[in-house]
Amino acid sequence: MTKKTRNDVTTTTELREETAQPVAKKPEKKMGRVSFVGAGPGDARLLTVRAAELLAAADVVIIESPEQAALVTNDAEIIDGGVNADGVVLTHAVRAKLVVKHAKTGANVVRLMTGAPFTYATGPEEALACVKADVPFEVVPGISSVGAVPAYAGVPLTTKQNREFKVVSVGDANIDWTEHANHDTLVLLSAVNRIGEVAAALVEAGRSPETPISMTRLGTTTQQETIVSTLADIAADAKKAGMTPPAITVIGDVVALRESLSWFETKPL
Amino acid sequence: MTKKTRNDVTTTTELREETAQPVAKKPEKKMGRVSFVGAGPGDARLLTVRAAELLAAADVVIIESPEQAALVTNDAEIIDGGVNADGVVLTHAVRAKLVVKHAKTGANVVRLMTGAPFTYATGPEEALACVKADVPFEVVPGISSVGAVPAYAGVPLTTKQNREFKVVSVGDANIDWTEHANHDTLVLLSAVNRIGEVAAALVEAGRSPETPISMTRLGTTTQQETIVSTLADIAADAKKAGMTPPAITVIGDVVALRESLSWFETKPL
Repeated sequence: MTKKTRNDVTTTTELREETAQPVAKKPEKKMGRVSFVGAGPGDARLLTVRAAELLAAADVVIIESPEQAALVTNDAEIIDGGVNADGVVLTHAVRAKLVVKHAKTGANVVRLMTGAPFTYATGPEEALACVKADVPFEVVPGISSVGAVPAYAGVPLTTKQNREFKVVSVGDANIDWTEHANHDTLVLLSAVNRIGEVAAALVEAGRSPETPISMTRLGTTTQQETIVSTLADIAADAKKAGMTPPAITVIGDVVALRESLSWFETKPL
Repeated sequence: MTKKTRNDVTTTTELREETAQPVAKKPEKKMGRVSFVGAGPGDARLLTVRAAELLAAADVVIIESPEQAALVTNDAEIIDGGVNADGVVLTHAVRAKLVVKHAKTGANVVRLMTGAPFTYATGPEEALACVKADVPFEVVPGISSVGAVPAYAGVPLTTKQNREFKVVSVGDANIDWTEHANHDTLVLLSAVNRIGEVAAALVEAGRSPETPISMTRLGTTTQQETIVSTLADIAADAKKAGMTPPAITVIGDVVALRESLSWFETKPL
């Protein structure tokens, strides 16, 4: 299946020569196509069936984080759409140009995207660039890390007793933690580097220092590691365990269920 | 791969006879296993690779809505875990018993779940029943309809100009629509039967009657159909189009992008 489009071009040219049809000086280039594909949380088995098909038939795969290279198992050209040669993060507009440029060579382009391709901003922008350039495209949603990583850690986000959860992207955002002082389950993204500060703010906002907290690093992959602690102790425990990004953090009583429900980290292989 | 576990039991028994070991009067029954698998929005190509593998090897598949039967392509026994013979919706506890009962026969059980298996309540409850009964299990997250169905309709949920979206499950809930009077994108679940009332309430809360709205029925399947209208006209247009559940509704400026970004309903096959 690899290089299918390019082979098609060759075949057409050969056919023209064989049948002695007049050959245009510059044979019309066949337009490629682009698939915007959600990369999922990491485990290749959590790609969709359609994503796996498209990756197997890809000529060019544009990734946006280095881990995504592991999902490419054929001989497709892998292009870093995350940063340029100087390590500077590409703008959405530059990524859109990159995608269109490769499709115009006639390639089957898979654009692997962290998170859902049409749920957050860069997907629609790149798809609009395809429309403008007459490049056909499709969208293949991916599995979200928000639910998948805790599930692989044996931490359900809701139970009969805990019906609500909130997702908070920490990063360098300025968050009013008093809004999260109640008993709802919290799922924190990009919290690793500020976990001590976040835990202290939640305790100050009124959450019990004994509230259970889990942090799962490289979730769903064979390197998955989870630590379980409390708001009081997480800063020290995360340091001791050498916890580094990427990780998903869950705070709330649901974390206690991991003791019974952990299935992936303890799985015999 | 089908009936693998059951074949294993036979093989063990045969081996015992061949090697003339004393055979227990009642050979120990091999325990089956359960996979809690997210069924995705409908398109079988949006199953994960792992879900497809597990379905291919399943002896028993427990579904919770009739459409899920279409995802079973081997000769596995299909059991309705949604309603009983009298059409009464099963409780979580009854479903948990059903799952454990089938695993105890030695079967590879796939429990197909609408939505994410460990994000909403019944998954953890059924998994805890497995733990109690010593039944091994795994969890395979599925693609959420919330992002996937709009993506297949050519409606992105965020853009550079529209960065926030809210998901509201309508059903028979009593919702304060004044909280949704601003310009955020709204994704409504289970809104079909109340769409006239909901649109009127949003207009009364201050949203423009010209706000675009899309409703996509049976999204991601070959029967996918989308109507686009405005808050002022949706009630009449939905009626005219014969719109019935299940559908996902999107309200906001992002809906206007469908004109450029629709790719699935217009795809040549």
